[in-house]
Amino acid sequence: MTHQEAAQSANLIFICVHREHYEFLKTLAPHLEGKVLVDLSNNLKKNKYPEANAAYLQRLVPKAAVVKGLNTLSAWALQNGLLAGKQVYLCGNNAAAKQAVAEMATKLGLAVLDRGSLSAAREIEDFPLRLFPEWRLPLCVALGLTAFFFFYLLIRDVIYAYVEKDQNISYRIMVSLANKVFPIVSLVMLSLCYLPGVIAAFLQLYRGTKYRRFPDWLDRWMLCRKQMGLVALGFAFLHVVYTLIIPIRYPFEYNLIKQVQRAAPNQNQTTPLHFDNTEAWGADSFFVTGILGFFLYVLLGLTSLPSVGGSLSWREFSFVQSKLGYLTLFICTTHGYIYGWNKFLRRSTYKWYTPPAFMLCLIVPSVVLVLKFILLVPCVDRTVMRIRQGWERRRPRGETDDMKATNM
Amino acid sequence: MTHQEAAQSANLIFICVHREHYEFLKTLAPHLEGKVLVDLSNNLKKNKYPEANAAYLQRLVPKAAVVKGLNTLSAWALQNGLLAGKQVYLCGNNAAAKQAVAEMATKLGLAVLDRGSLSAAREIEDFPLRLFPEWRLPLCVALGLTAFFFFYLLIRDVIYAYVEKDQNISYRIMVSLANKVFPIVSLVMLSLCYLPGVIAAFLQLYRGTKYRRFPDWLDRWMLCRKQMGLVALGFAFLHVVYTLIIPIRYPFEYNLIKQVQRAAPNQNQTTPLHFDNTEAWGADSFFVTGILGFFLYVLLGLTSLPSVGGSLSWREFSFVQSKLGYLTLFICTTHGYIYGWNKFLRRSTYKWYTPPAFMLCLIVPSVVLVLKFILLVPCVDRTVMRIRQGWERRRPRGETDDMKATNM
Amino acid sequence: MTHQEAAQSANLIFICVHREHYEFLKTLAPHLEGKVLVDLSNNLKKNKYPEANAAYLQRLVPKAAVVKGLNTLSAWALQNGLLAGKQVYLCGNNAAAKQAVAEMATKLGLAVLDRGSLSAAREIEDFPLRLFPEWRLPLCVALGLTAFFFFYLLIRDVIYAYVEKDQNISYRIMVSLANKVFPIVSLVMLSLCYLPGVIAAFLQLYRGTKYRRFPDWLDRWMLCRKQMGLVALGFAFLHVVYTLIIPIRYPFEYNLIKQVQRAAPNQNQTTPLHFDNTEAWGADSFFVTGILGFFLYVLLGLTSLPSVGGSLSWREFSFVQSKLGYLTLFICTTHGYIYGWNKFLRRSTYKWYTPPAFMLCLIVPSVVLVLKFILLVPCVDRTVMRIRQGWERRRPRGETDDMKATNM
Repeated sequence: MTHQEAAQSANLIFICVHREHYEFLKTLAPHLEGKVLVDLSNNLKKNKYPEANAAYLQRLVPKAAVVKGLNTLSAWALQNGLLAGKQVYLCGNNAAAKQAVAEMATKLGLAVLDRGSLSAAREIEDFPLRLFPEWRLPLCVALGLTAFFFFYLLIRDVIYAYVEKDQNISYRIMVSLANKVFPIVSLVMLSLCYLPGVIAAFLQLYRGTKYRRFPDWLDRWMLCRKQMGLVALGFAFLHVVYTLIIPIRYPFEYNLIKQVQRAAPNQNQTTPLHFDNTEAWGADSFFVTGILGFFLYVLLGLTSLPSVGGSLSWREFSFVQSKLGYLTLFICTTHGYIYGWNKFLRRSTYKWYTPPAFMLCLIVPSVVLVLKFILLVPCVDRTVMRIRQGWERRRPRGETDDMKATNM
Repeated sequence: MTHQEAAQSANLIFICVHREHYEFLKTLAPHLEGKVLVDLSNNLKKNKYPEANAAYLQRLVPKAAVVKGLNTLSAWALQNGLLAGKQVYLCGNNAAAKQAVAEMATKLGLAVLDRGSLSAAREIEDFPLRLFPEWRLPLCVALGLTAFFFFYLLIRDVIYAYVEKDQNISYRIMVSLANKVFPIVSLVMLSLCYLPGVIAAFLQLYRGTKYRRFPDWLDRWMLCRKQMGLVALGFAFLHVVYTLIIPIRYPFEYNLIKQVQRAAPNQNQTTPLHFDNTEAWGADSFFVTGILGFFLYVLLGLTSLPSVGGSLSWREFSFVQSKLGYLTLFICTTHGYIYGWNKFLRRSTYKWYTPPAFMLCLIVPSVVLVLKFILLVPCVDRTVMRIRQGWERRRPRGETDDMKATNM
Repeated sequence: MTHQEAAQSANLIFICVHREHYEFLKTLAPHLEGKVLVDLSNNLKKNKYPEANAAYLQRLVPKAAVVKGLNTLSAWALQNGLLAGKQVYLCGNNAAAKQAVAEMATKLGLAVLDRGSLSAAREIEDFPLRLFPEWRLPLCVALGLTAFFFFYLLIRDVIYAYVEKDQNISYRIMVSLANKVFPIVSLVMLSLCYLPGVIAAFLQLYRGTKYRRFPDWLDRWMLCRKQMGLVALGFAFLHVVYTLIIPIRYPFEYNLIKQVQRAAPNQNQTTPLHFDNTEAWGADSFFVTGILGFFLYVLLGLTSLPSVGGSLSWREFSFVQSKLGYLTLFICTTHGYIYGWNKFLRRSTYKWYTPPAFMLCLIVPSVVLVLKFILLVPCVDRTVMRIRQGWERRRPRGETDDMKATNM
């Protein structure tokens, strides 16, 4: 079958050709008159061409009705019958043509979303080129926090030891330092997951209504909470594995031997080793809170899998992500506090008059937990609930200002 | 557009209002005559109101055809086009109205299930309030087992040491005791996963037919096997992490130093340390069965993810959940037996004349494995297979009684 | 309702009966004339009967239109409304009958695939009996590699020690040996994931076109890359857990005590223990590359979950599976090189003149990385990209032969 015959035989024609080869369609233009052309093309880069592929096609074949869409489907999904339930986008200037394509797509089990006229083609063509847009902010925050705490710890631990005590403990950078940075970043990121929700509740309380939009930054923050939590889980996972390899590391063995030698300074009279019960309880509580926190972390991560989360009812999902989430945050924060329980008051903790990193990292989670605790007080909780159900506190202008003043 | 105009312009009207605000619909009642009203409302609590929201709505607007349904869809799913394939429930007294809503829902890709007349509205309104109903039984079993074994171990280990040897080893509660409770509960829960299947097979064998319903308790038990297995996996995960942190714990270090001192009582003549090959083999077998068991456990858990399980064929699913499942149970039970291999005959094991906890926990899995083994005997296996294919063993009443007697 | 009445009342009849009971349909044949019979039956074994169930049914009821299909749906999925989006197969000799069944299936949200005439029934009946067909090749490769490296290491480690040094270190088989085999097989399998992609690129470069089919073995290899990667992840998981239990094993403790004794040969003058910084750095780099490699491994594994992979855009998926994949391979290969960094030049490494296993296992990943590096050179990369976009390098026959000669 020649191209001409093919063009004449069908009403709905799919153009699965690279944009570079569109030129030849010009020659077919007379045969394409009145036909619906579905432009499935994608580009390899953003802004490679001045106009959208579909607009270019429309210019080449002006008498056909060009519809842009379905380009987000992968050949792999097509081949394996994995289309059902996928959302696809369509746009085009001819409503009847769009309708025809939408019907065909619905028959294939796709969920069609009309994005309007052909001027939206550009946006649709850029969809397959998007690279984790919702992960960008969380990853930037994670990177920033990691860099900050890494250098903070580098200065306080390694450089301090080199300058003040003339010790070279640079080997600690690889594991010990990283194993301080990871839990710190993880805990801060986890609390950053829950901070926007708390801020939103206080904002609603202050405004006395839920019908005013949140500021843009809060909206964007709330939309990437899931990704923040998953990045936090990643850091927690690294922290766990880094902790578990401690005893196979060379310094652990070295220290153990050192300790044995110290425990027996004079071998002729084996000094009885004293077992410190408080130490054992403290260390074990530290480990147990860490393990339980990680366990809940993993549970939260599992429910954020699309297929697991999708099978939960709304109440179940909110139970897991809110109740279990705050429990996780609480346990992990306790883990941090236990770490520092006997270090807070020691002078040696404040090297060069700076607080240790774990103190810094406990600030945000503590604030979130305190704010959440305030929100759980019955009278506050009831007011928030009523506002979220649509109740509004309307006051004359003057009163609002009063309240504002009180709040500040 | 006023509410009146809106009401007049459409035939299908979605009521997305909290029940408290239904009152105003009474004023619109004349305009709603003959219209289909879809009640999407949910309540915050069960049994908050004496009648269902939909029934209340019907009472307010008696001439409209109220259809309850679609309330299980989350706003979040609607916004993100994640509707396809979701199951929704409908009920209503007017068949034509239900049909209209069902058609609309089918177009959106939803799978509609008709639950009958409006009297089912209550049940449908309670759906979004359900909180893991199928997890309740497994979690209760897990909690009960945990509590029992915790106190059993507390008495036998900590209190025994305090009473009989005047030692305070309470620090063991946090990690060592928990690390005994977790594997025990995990193994018992795993065997409780497979016990109902075995009981069902024996029941079918005894009855000689598959066409009689199982007793209710067995049905309910079989329906929560997956959740039981996942709870068991959670306990196994905790057991693994608790085990892996042993060497960074304070008592490990203490014991090591102790052992070194003991190994060298007189330092002037370093006593050659003897390497016990049997000990090494035994301990390593213990670890290896544990690791392989956990690996298979995780595999089973992965295939119970909705998206993974859904992509398996029936035979693949049953292969994984049955063959691999019994293999896991077998390996984990072996893990338990190896733990006790040289403790069974020691007198010190039976403190205060009670068996140790690991012996108690091996009972159920051993029974399941023995019963399964009997079911695998060719002649038994063939009979079960024939019964499951619909074959029935019919006997006169007297003979059945005979058989009953023999069985007992 | 009798069978006769049921048969007469409907046009579309589902036969949910075991093949053994088909016989009775013969008596109903007159009532089934002109009806559409959907054969849903499955067999328990392949090739149990000389003809397909559907063909047998057609023979029994020659005047009905038999359609085979829907047999891949599980009763469980039917009961739980999990049909939406599932792919089902149909076949039959009567086009109208097939059409009727297909329409009904589409209404249920199923994706129907027509497999032609009734002669395809056999194949369709064998679908539910398939047991992980796409996992067969990867598992065979894994098994082969495991067996080879196990015996190689057994000879070089255990048997060598026994023969040459008269030491019995057979206890190492359980953990130490396995822990060498697992990472080796994992790394080789991971590189085998990426090797076919590299071979395909070079093949396209050599041929100068993408329009010629790859050889069959390459096609089959490329289709099981995902499974190969997941098997590799399983081995890596085992390697990680096996490594983490090292310090609770008996030999670790033994060695530690040995080392303490050696460190203090004469206790009256405690020899100062020397801390080796290079050793600490080397060992820690080894651990860090291992952990990061495993972390990326797990990420790759997560994105291969159907529900996660399905929510990624094409570019995101290819970014993860290609960029992140090569990064994982690179880090894991580095992990292997660091392991051997000070062993390459030692004579004791080459027992019985054979290279150690870790050297053998580094060959394939190194080759893959070098080839990939060549493909990343701008001029090569550009050519491959052009070929993949449809550009063809056509030459007269002679030139191609020249090129062939050069290549060889």
